[in-house]
Amino acid sequence: MKYSSKLIADAVAEFTKLPGIGEKTALRLVLHLLKQDTEKVKFFGDAVTKMRSEIKFCRTCHNVSDHEQCEICSNVHRDHSTVCLVESIRDVIAIENTNIFRGVYHILGGVISPIDGIGPDKLNIESLLNRVKSGEVKEVIMAISPTIEGDTTIFYVSKKLKEYGVNITTIARGISFGGELEYADEMTLARSIATRLPYENVLVKGAN
Amino acid sequence: MKYSSKLIADAVAEFTKLPGIGEKTALRLVLHLLKQDTEKVKFFGDAVTKMRSEIKFCRTCHNVSDHEQCEICSNVHRDHSTVCLVESIRDVIAIENTNIFRGVYHILGGVISPIDGIGPDKLNIESLLNRVKSGEVKEVIMAISPTIEGDTTIFYVSKKLKEYGVNITTIARGISFGGELEYADEMTLARSIATRLPYENVLVKGAN
Repeated sequence: MKYSSKLIADAVAEFTKLPGIGEKTALRLVLHLLKQDTEKVKFFGDAVTKMRSEIKFCRTCHNVSDHEQCEICSNVHRDHSTVCLVESIRDVIAIENTNIFRGVYHILGGVISPIDGIGPDKLNIESLLNRVKSGEVKEVIMAISPTIEGDTTIFYVSKKLKEYGVNITTIARGISFGGELEYADEMTLARSIATRLPYENVLVKGAN
Repeated sequence: MKYSSKLIADAVAEFTKLPGIGEKTALRLVLHLLKQDTEKVKFFGDAVTKMRSEIKFCRTCHNVSDHEQCEICSNVHRDHSTVCLVESIRDVIAIENTNIFRGVYHILGGVISPIDGIGPDKLNIESLLNRVKSGEVKEVIMAISPTIEGDTTIFYVSKKLKEYGVNITTIARGISFGGELEYADEMTLARSIATRLPYENVLVKGAN
């Protein structure tokens, strides 16, 4: 598209770099911002720039944080003996929003994927082992997506953890709440039958 | 949603102010930016802020511009005797992308809509009349959406223009290219029969 202003063209180009935003959507956003007060738009730009430049990563769990240690790791009311191992920050937000987990997290920063050149050394595994070594951790919950790469990662990490005598669990796998059996894939369905549980276990209990 | 970082929460809140962007999408955009280099994110923030603070509006047609007069108005190769009257900047971009119009524009900045408190005095009508008064304009094309408000606006502006003896036209109304008759609304279909044209007029000619 052609724009009569380079400033507009530049702003549109920047927005189209974001995932899921095409040129038409970018233009809509830019024209929306154009209608706002200069101050408000400056606020938007500054919030984004500041977010990236001032963000810190928690030295314990690698979560994003405004300080050296994140709010979760520095919260004495949380159960520091239960560590939930997740792939990314997004997973922490998703689990936190369920309001059911009172333990702490450890963010791997990805999963083992040789095809993408991600080996165990690129993930935050060493720091997890150090946390476990300290003796404070009693259980590590593998909250990793049940994909080939995810399962490989779980296998690798659990093997490394074994020698420390920590309890290793994974999040339950099966049919989603509200999901219909006939649309479930065979693997999920077959496994959910093989790993069936006593009915009372399915009734929701507060975790930890 | 809860975020472990106020910086993230602020950036997400800013993105959700944009049209069509909910909290989940905003978070996706913020986490994407988080993975980028600090420099690149600063570039994004600056492009947006700069766009709003440095943008100018063309003193002739009210289009957005990097200068006092926009690229279209200052282009001597364009036909300054044909003015296309549009509602917004977006319409200029849409028409420019057809590559068929070689005249110039005039941006009203909206349509007359008493229910939204927009009277003729809030639109750029006075400056249009001044352009016409100068004698340079021979034709004003009403490229306004054929809605109730749009039609009211066209009626009002054309009445004002009448005394200057300028030629007033509107963009053609009818069935869209590729549109199916059975799905067209009755008003459009009825009018398109009432205002039928000789077949040769439909064959695409370069405008102006």
